[in-house]
Amino acid sequence: MELSDNTIERICKVFGHLALLEKKGVEFVSSKELAEQIGTTEYTVRKDISLLGGPGYTRKGYEVSSFKRELGQKFQLTKSRKACIVGLGRLGTALLDYENFQEDGFEIVAGFDCSVNKIERIRTNIDVFPVSRLQEITQARSIELGIIAVPAESAQEIADELTKAGVKGILNFSPVKVNVPARIVHLDMDFTNALRFIAARFVMQNK
Amino acid sequence: MELSDNTIERICKVFGHLALLEKKGVEFVSSKELAEQIGTTEYTVRKDISLLGGPGYTRKGYEVSSFKRELGQKFQLTKSRKACIVGLGRLGTALLDYENFQEDGFEIVAGFDCSVNKIERIRTNIDVFPVSRLQEITQARSIELGIIAVPAESAQEIADELTKAGVKGILNFSPVKVNVPARIVHLDMDFTNALRFIAARFVMQNK
Repeated sequence: MELSDNTIERICKVFGHLALLEKKGVEFVSSKELAEQIGTTEYTVRKDISLLGGPGYTRKGYEVSSFKRELGQKFQLTKSRKACIVGLGRLGTALLDYENFQEDGFEIVAGFDCSVNKIERIRTNIDVFPVSRLQEITQARSIELGIIAVPAESAQEIADELTKAGVKGILNFSPVKVNVPARIVHLDMDFTNALRFIAARFVMQNK
Repeated sequence: MELSDNTIERICKVFGHLALLEKKGVEFVSSKELAEQIGTTEYTVRKDISLLGGPGYTRKGYEVSSFKRELGQKFQLTKSRKACIVGLGRLGTALLDYENFQEDGFEIVAGFDCSVNKIERIRTNIDVFPVSRLQEITQARSIELGIIAVPAESAQEIADELTKAGVKGILNFSPVKVNVPARIVHLDMDFTNALRFIAARFVMQNK
């Protein structure tokens, strides 16, 4: 089954919302509510779900727990996955202890930085290492995901290191796009570009 | 001219890459390079540019500076815009001093938190205030963009406050979607969902 990136993204958001509802003890959810929460149409939600052969829609809506369990199994979303963060500036340090990762099954098991000084001074419960040990530690700890939080000029180099270390996916917070082989799933999250998009969208909307 | 969000997003990325090239002193860029850098096809790049009535393509490619200037004018991307950050936990604090915002014309002019203790202890050059002063300061300082970095349970409340304060756009880093009136442009950036997407995409790719 070939799913588009947009579909996968929506499904991940649906899963996130189901997890929230389950925590609150909510039993049923309508396609209308799901559509509103993930910012799409009811039609799209129903289409995505039917594409997946998902649960039937009862008069009360979808049953939250079983729907969540089903998506979780299909996409292995409940599997705990190990991740590392490379670059321990302010952003990287904030991400080290970002509690939402943990809650959702992503375990940060190592941090790396090129500055030995920074590694010695940093206050965190996560193990931190010099970046020269990236490949060794990634392999020894079975790290699947690499999070890049280094400055623009080092981002590609770190992406190459993570690739050699054998990670499956890369989340890149540096303000430049990185190039990695197609077998590695990667996503660039550029904050400045997000602000730029908001500003440009606003300008267009009011023209 | 009605441009899709995807087109606007690509144009913002093109602008970002042009800015980088200009800084490096590069004079011309091909549509191939632009396509690679923003993760799309050459055809799409050329189509976007022709939609905008953009610069002609010479044998050397697009002229970097004039192309950047043109996009900047059309989308007011070179206009400096004031932003505030609400929620000064580790992530919010990291964003306060995120230098890439500044470089690209986004000026963080205030930070807010509900903890007076945190406000007193925080070390930054940016002015910080209790969240009770959000509306007052936002209006007094002509803040156009609000960045939400509070925990999930307060995110909607802060989005409402920012709406009342009259911001034009909201960038939401909390792990829940916020609802705001359509006149306000907003973007949810959920880190956990990004990791989930990468993991799910990898699972699908290898099925």
